[in-house]
Amino acid sequence: MNIHQLIEKTRTFRRFDESHDVSEETLVSLVDLARLSASGANRQPLKYILVTNPAMREAVYPCLAWAGYLSDWHGPDQGERPTAYIVIVGDREITESFGVDHGIAAQSIMLGATETGLGGCIIASVKKEKLQTALSIPKQYDVLLVLALGKPAEQVVIDIISNNNVKYWRDEKRVHHVPKRTLAEIIIRR
Amino acid sequence: MNIHQLIEKTRTFRRFDESHDVSEETLVSLVDLARLSASGANRQPLKYILVTNPAMREAVYPCLAWAGYLSDWHGPDQGERPTAYIVIVGDREITESFGVDHGIAAQSIMLGATETGLGGCIIASVKKEKLQTALSIPKQYDVLLVLALGKPAEQVVIDIISNNNVKYWRDEKRVHHVPKRTLAEIIIRR
Repeated sequence: MNIHQLIEKTRTFRRFDESHDVSEETLVSLVDLARLSASGANRQPLKYILVTNPAMREAVYPCLAWAGYLSDWHGPDQGERPTAYIVIVGDREITESFGVDHGIAAQSIMLGATETGLGGCIIASVKKEKLQTALSIPKQYDVLLVLALGKPAEQVVIDIISNNNVKYWRDEKRVHHVPKRTLAEIIIRR
Repeated sequence: MNIHQLIEKTRTFRRFDESHDVSEETLVSLVDLARLSASGANRQPLKYILVTNPAMREAVYPCLAWAGYLSDWHGPDQGERPTAYIVIVGDREITESFGVDHGIAAQSIMLGATETGLGGCIIASVKKEKLQTALSIPKQYDVLLVLALGKPAEQVVIDIISNNNVKYWRDEKRVHHVPKRTLAEIIIRR
């Protein structure tokens, strides 16, 4: 798979085959991709919490907001939930300003996940205090992002945007449609 | 190349073969990778300015800060400068909050650059007003990042960090060394 194919395949998935476990070893290899990625001033302030066991997964799940545009769907039901999470935190003892390091790291991890047959969702809408308590995360760490991972159990397709409407939606077959802007719209000068 | 190899090869390069031009077409294909990447709430507020011609490159160059830790080196000399830039801006008419979209987009672009034999540097330390003037960027757009690109003309190696010293450095052969934290340090819980 070249990078274009890999990125095209790296859709945001929110429904998973919950019978498919993700090993801790897999998560470690994904974090290694983030470790080798660029970091502002090479400070590398990001730290990672790996979540694979069912009890911890259950503690993380209610701290997350799912698919804001789908008003009649509040997140994956039991049986369709992520089977792993990587919580990205910023270590305030290193810096107070994390720039876009966590965006870079998250993208490296999600691309690696696709390559191993997994998929998931970069979640910024997190009840941070609740998660901090649920996982006993020391105050030294700022919760930045949660990556929900598992074996995808839904189809996601890219549509061309129309009428500037960015809202994703599900059709009658539960296929998830994501409208994307065109190159002509996003390249404003060349 | 698998994703691990691609990320490992995607080092931050700051010296280039300035005789090697980058085509506008190449930049468009790199922006397409960003276009297909995740965006918070699918808002897709990022827009892109492509810079390939020498006059525009010369206008961009003095707006950038290079390699803060190398106190005796203030940036690439003529002959070693980037031959293309992608300026990532945020469209304030879409949202005022860009989250980590530009980190995700930048990583997609840099990985694509590596695959095509290019390399470069994600620069957040930008004289934004100066660049806004130099390229006549309307006020509607927030300058977020500048990606400097070209054919790398330096060797960059990853070292294991010691004494918590994150400062990259150049050896007597001008090889650029980048100390990286270990997995044991960055995974704080599993």
